[in-house]
Amino acid sequence: MNFASDNVTGASAPILDALVQANAGAMPAYGEDPLTASLTARFREVFEHPELAVYPVATGTAANALALAAMVPPYGLCLCHAQAHVTTDECGAPEFFTHGAKLAHLPGTGARIDPGALEAALARLPRSVHRMPAHALSLSQASEAGLVYAPEAVARLSGIARRHGLTVHMDGARLANAVARLGCRPAEITWRAGVDVLSFGASKNGALAAEAIVVFRPDLADSIAYRRKRAGHLLSKGRLLAAQLHAYLADDHWLANASHANRLADRLARGLRAVAGVRLAWPVEANEVFPILPVRLARGLRAGGAVFYDWPTESLAPGESVGEDEVLVRLITAFSTPEAEVDALLALARDSA
Amino acid sequence: MNFASDNVTGASAPILDALVQANAGAMPAYGEDPLTASLTARFREVFEHPELAVYPVATGTAANALALAAMVPPYGLCLCHAQAHVTTDECGAPEFFTHGAKLAHLPGTGARIDPGALEAALARLPRSVHRMPAHALSLSQASEAGLVYAPEAVARLSGIARRHGLTVHMDGARLANAVARLGCRPAEITWRAGVDVLSFGASKNGALAAEAIVVFRPDLADSIAYRRKRAGHLLSKGRLLAAQLHAYLADDHWLANASHANRLADRLARGLRAVAGVRLAWPVEANEVFPILPVRLARGLRAGGAVFYDWPTESLAPGESVGEDEVLVRLITAFSTPEAEVDALLALARDSA
Amino acid sequence: MNFASDNVTGASAPILDALVQANAGAMPAYGEDPLTASLTARFREVFEHPELAVYPVATGTAANALALAAMVPPYGLCLCHAQAHVTTDECGAPEFFTHGAKLAHLPGTGARIDPGALEAALARLPRSVHRMPAHALSLSQASEAGLVYAPEAVARLSGIARRHGLTVHMDGARLANAVARLGCRPAEITWRAGVDVLSFGASKNGALAAEAIVVFRPDLADSIAYRRKRAGHLLSKGRLLAAQLHAYLADDHWLANASHANRLADRLARGLRAVAGVRLAWPVEANEVFPILPVRLARGLRAGGAVFYDWPTESLAPGESVGEDEVLVRLITAFSTPEAEVDALLALARDSA
Amino acid sequence: MNFASDNVTGASAPILDALVQANAGAMPAYGEDPLTASLTARFREVFEHPELAVYPVATGTAANALALAAMVPPYGLCLCHAQAHVTTDECGAPEFFTHGAKLAHLPGTGARIDPGALEAALARLPRSVHRMPAHALSLSQASEAGLVYAPEAVARLSGIARRHGLTVHMDGARLANAVARLGCRPAEITWRAGVDVLSFGASKNGALAAEAIVVFRPDLADSIAYRRKRAGHLLSKGRLLAAQLHAYLADDHWLANASHANRLADRLARGLRAVAGVRLAWPVEANEVFPILPVRLARGLRAGGAVFYDWPTESLAPGESVGEDEVLVRLITAFSTPEAEVDALLALARDSA
Repeated sequence: MNFASDNVTGASAPILDALVQANAGAMPAYGEDPLTASLTARFREVFEHPELAVYPVATGTAANALALAAMVPPYGLCLCHAQAHVTTDECGAPEFFTHGAKLAHLPGTGARIDPGALEAALARLPRSVHRMPAHALSLSQASEAGLVYAPEAVARLSGIARRHGLTVHMDGARLANAVARLGCRPAEITWRAGVDVLSFGASKNGALAAEAIVVFRPDLADSIAYRRKRAGHLLSKGRLLAAQLHAYLADDHWLANASHANRLADRLARGLRAVAGVRLAWPVEANEVFPILPVRLARGLRAGGAVFYDWPTESLAPGESVGEDEVLVRLITAFSTPEAEVDALLALARDSA
Repeated sequence: MNFASDNVTGASAPILDALVQANAGAMPAYGEDPLTASLTARFREVFEHPELAVYPVATGTAANALALAAMVPPYGLCLCHAQAHVTTDECGAPEFFTHGAKLAHLPGTGARIDPGALEAALARLPRSVHRMPAHALSLSQASEAGLVYAPEAVARLSGIARRHGLTVHMDGARLANAVARLGCRPAEITWRAGVDVLSFGASKNGALAAEAIVVFRPDLADSIAYRRKRAGHLLSKGRLLAAQLHAYLADDHWLANASHANRLADRLARGLRAVAGVRLAWPVEANEVFPILPVRLARGLRAGGAVFYDWPTESLAPGESVGEDEVLVRLITAFSTPEAEVDALLALARDSA
Repeated sequence: MNFASDNVTGASAPILDALVQANAGAMPAYGEDPLTASLTARFREVFEHPELAVYPVATGTAANALALAAMVPPYGLCLCHAQAHVTTDECGAPEFFTHGAKLAHLPGTGARIDPGALEAALARLPRSVHRMPAHALSLSQASEAGLVYAPEAVARLSGIARRHGLTVHMDGARLANAVARLGCRPAEITWRAGVDVLSFGASKNGALAAEAIVVFRPDLADSIAYRRKRAGHLLSKGRLLAAQLHAYLADDHWLANASHANRLADRLARGLRAVAGVRLAWPVEANEVFPILPVRLARGLRAGGAVFYDWPTESLAPGESVGEDEVLVRLITAFSTPEAEVDALLALARDSA
Repeated sequence: MNFASDNVTGASAPILDALVQANAGAMPAYGEDPLTASLTARFREVFEHPELAVYPVATGTAANALALAAMVPPYGLCLCHAQAHVTTDECGAPEFFTHGAKLAHLPGTGARIDPGALEAALARLPRSVHRMPAHALSLSQASEAGLVYAPEAVARLSGIARRHGLTVHMDGARLANAVARLGCRPAEITWRAGVDVLSFGASKNGALAAEAIVVFRPDLADSIAYRRKRAGHLLSKGRLLAAQLHAYLADDHWLANASHANRLADRLARGLRAVAGVRLAWPVEANEVFPILPVRLARGLRAGGAVFYDWPTESLAPGESVGEDEVLVRLITAFSTPEAEVDALLALARDSA
């Protein structure tokens, strides 16, 4: 009963198969192979964008940090939510790749940026050489706490950003979960809503290690190829990443995987809400569930073999709070989570309550 | 007949099998999995060193640049051969990871550093704040031009470096080929000969994407874990790299692969030398052959389907030169090169001569 | 009536004289001149520390950022107050010089760090490669809002920092004002209280452009000479900085200047408090006064020719607040402020009230 | 008899006077003072360029490195002469300010870039992500060895650079000496000949510490204000730099100073050439003399109190060489060198020969 992360699994069967298939034969090194070459057309199709550029990399940290390095000069600010993965969990990767740019923090329930707070922060920024000027906004879709931005929400934030001259980055480590939840086209919550550069995640949703930087504004793409090589993120055997990404997109495998994970998160949430003393900190909109549990119940679940993390309470909605005998936790479902495992956890919860 | 690089192949069968095996089941993310955990013991065994630390990464560029970042401060110099991969082919990765350190170039035939030149360069360096102080020496084993340093040669260079207060890095992208050629123990040409940090390569010799930074001096290891995460080189699914490295080391698979490649390089060299008008720029000591060919012959080989690169003539021995009608080229054999392919190339050469 | 900053004046007469004197004759360049050479002995005397090292630079930004670069690795955290100059007013200089380290913010009234908050922040920091590890604490003496740390207060914060393995930096842009106010020996609030590296300010208190990085821990000094040269902060004519610093320290000129500024700040505070509707946001402990004024009064002062800045209200004590019709402002006195100018401002205030 | 450097003197009388004058009264801090504000108009006049931007800084290292940071991305190459000051004597300042860009070296007698070598180097650079792409050319006017580029020579090099998409930087630490020697207008050897950004030196020719970054292409100026602040090179009391630069330009003081230094260099060269066994390594075109002396003579000069440096022989013209009993040395004259001192050295030389 491992609900700790969507990174604890291996690759999905179709993706593993694709890897094995792609292993045979000689292919040019360093991304000049035919599998990598055909990725561009594939992504242009999926995102309905005739000019986008794609740069596969092996990790989400690399995708985010390379994207931001192309968007923010060393002396610039990038605004993001105070709980965004880029600022809390990447050991300063954006600071490294941008050569010392700074992440400025915005508030918002469930790690989703509040548009009013963004507007206020940008209005407050003085234009002076003593302060670093804002250059980009980074959104996480889904948010670090499993909330989703609808197309209009993305457009609203992007609109504010653009009026202040910022470019817009989307950390899409869980983009698939958001697209599956919203039932929208990928274009709608990305470039059509004002996103300039997307970190397109696959590793959390079926790949072994594959992400893609998707650049919707050709002028921002210029430096990424050099920066990627220089950062050691151009794999010599490009087929490794390309094969995974092709299989991920084929036959909507990515959306099927995400739908499964989302559905199980719903099932988990529904079941937990029915347990006495349990409430959700905020709604489930992707594949993550954030219940506030009696401490005793959390202990019971862990004793019964369930694995999950405690979660900081800073993302709570105004007015919401966690009592002395309670704890906020995070449960994540993945493409590979069996329904039976969810049901086992729920049974355990009912027993421990 | 692809002799362009040892990167044009996929993974060897045992390594691919290991990948598929390791795919099943839940494992902790970010290198906390049991496969990764057991790598340290495995490398300590192979290198007969009780305290070494191992950091797997996906690319040789990352291994080299992270190693150098731990060894050279932003204001320091790293000495290396003028044709070393770190300085010619990594788009400034060492400069990026070290935050602006400089690579200073040393001469030597076949991209192997001349000890006298190293001694002279270090003697010449003034100690003054106007110049960047030398902090490390980087050797490539085998060299970028396929020459090997015997244990005494490594020890001699390391000795000079140490007397001037430098630490010693070895770029072992083709370490297996060197070990197989020399018939020595891995320890003998690394830490016992004075190497502090090793980039241990596997991708060119059977892995799909796997290298390891091997740190023989515990005090130098301190920063690498943070630097690796920050550079986006800590994979979320650590099993990908660990499974490859375990299979690579198991049953001396790495040495068997390298021996095959070396043997075919010898066969290729022997055959080419017998062709009229062909001579070798320097001996074959690993899996790379550098013949000087009549231009007409090179053209004939390519017309016949052989793939290989021209090579710059700066690495030639003093006195050696390439005539107007000649060209220096590089032919690489890999663990997967069929003997028949070498023989086909040789037949073609004899026909084209 | 310029109370905008202690940077609006030129040099004091003794310092200007020293500059003119030092101009004559040939001296070795790049800090090898006798004036620079004798600075070390002078600072060792003033700080009663037999081993300190001194690096003169022209700006406080350079002093702070070079000091932090020697103390914090690129992947490390430096803790400081959320309103500290290093994090709000230097356009990311620490991020630039440290190559991407991060400043983490602590709260506290009047820009003075609350020890409990420091303790809590350090206790909360997880030891994980996903987070940047804390390496240094930076204190401002006097604080950005003119509060002073007594020797015991410095020692308490340093003690917490050390227990967590951090080194301690002091931004002493207004150290003279603090020493003059506390009536203590310079050693007492610096190295004897646990400070490892000090940015010793002179430009705000009589110099034209001169600061010194004072390193009390020899092992931390190693890299500063190279970093300073590399940052363009080693002046070719070292006499410029050295002459100012010698004159600054001679005959306690620095303390006389600071005492004057402090005394006038007291006079200003006393006078303002007597004006109806005016209160101080926090006590005056150096040369800065932070009154909360009726908006109408602030307008009147400016109409009458007084120059000063509004100040953000984030530094207010818990429970304190600024009303709708009020504004928090900052008034600074300098070594050169005439008493008559203070009195003129007070008369204007009484007239405008 | 100090001929070691043009940095061994203080400020010239008019510049020192200007400093003293500018010291009085309150002025806005951080370059918002009227003296700094009027610098732009002054430089536009002197350089006959209606749109140039000026950024004063205290050191030539800062001027060069900030200029290059605005011109070369972190992954880019800057081409310069192998003996250029930026690459040999600034402890890696360009690498620091550009965040890891690389300086690629060009040959040429007397540290003056050979146009053929530039053309060849640019033609040879492969366009590949494995190599850093060339972004800028840096020329030194006068060269590190005292040679001057005539307007056509600058234009020729700039033309080659531009055809390859590079921008052009001029290190004008001794621009005054070049302008005085060539008798041309400052515009002719700078922007009219294709220079985009100029490091305009004053410290070696009469100022105490003052240089200016002069940007002829407005689009390249965007980032310099932020980079300068971030690097600690925005002085709080801007009058210090502005006063020096105004006095430097007033009444052609800069050219008068340079003409004096040049004239004395000529006198020195003429006198030395007449001494038996002495020849010049290359002509005197600015204020530096590079004689090849019998070792015995060099020793005699030093014994007699003359101060000067030995010089590396790498800049010698092809075919030229320094014999076993000879040494190449550098003698520099400054705005303040008395004619009598030159004559004393010559007398000493004649006595020692």
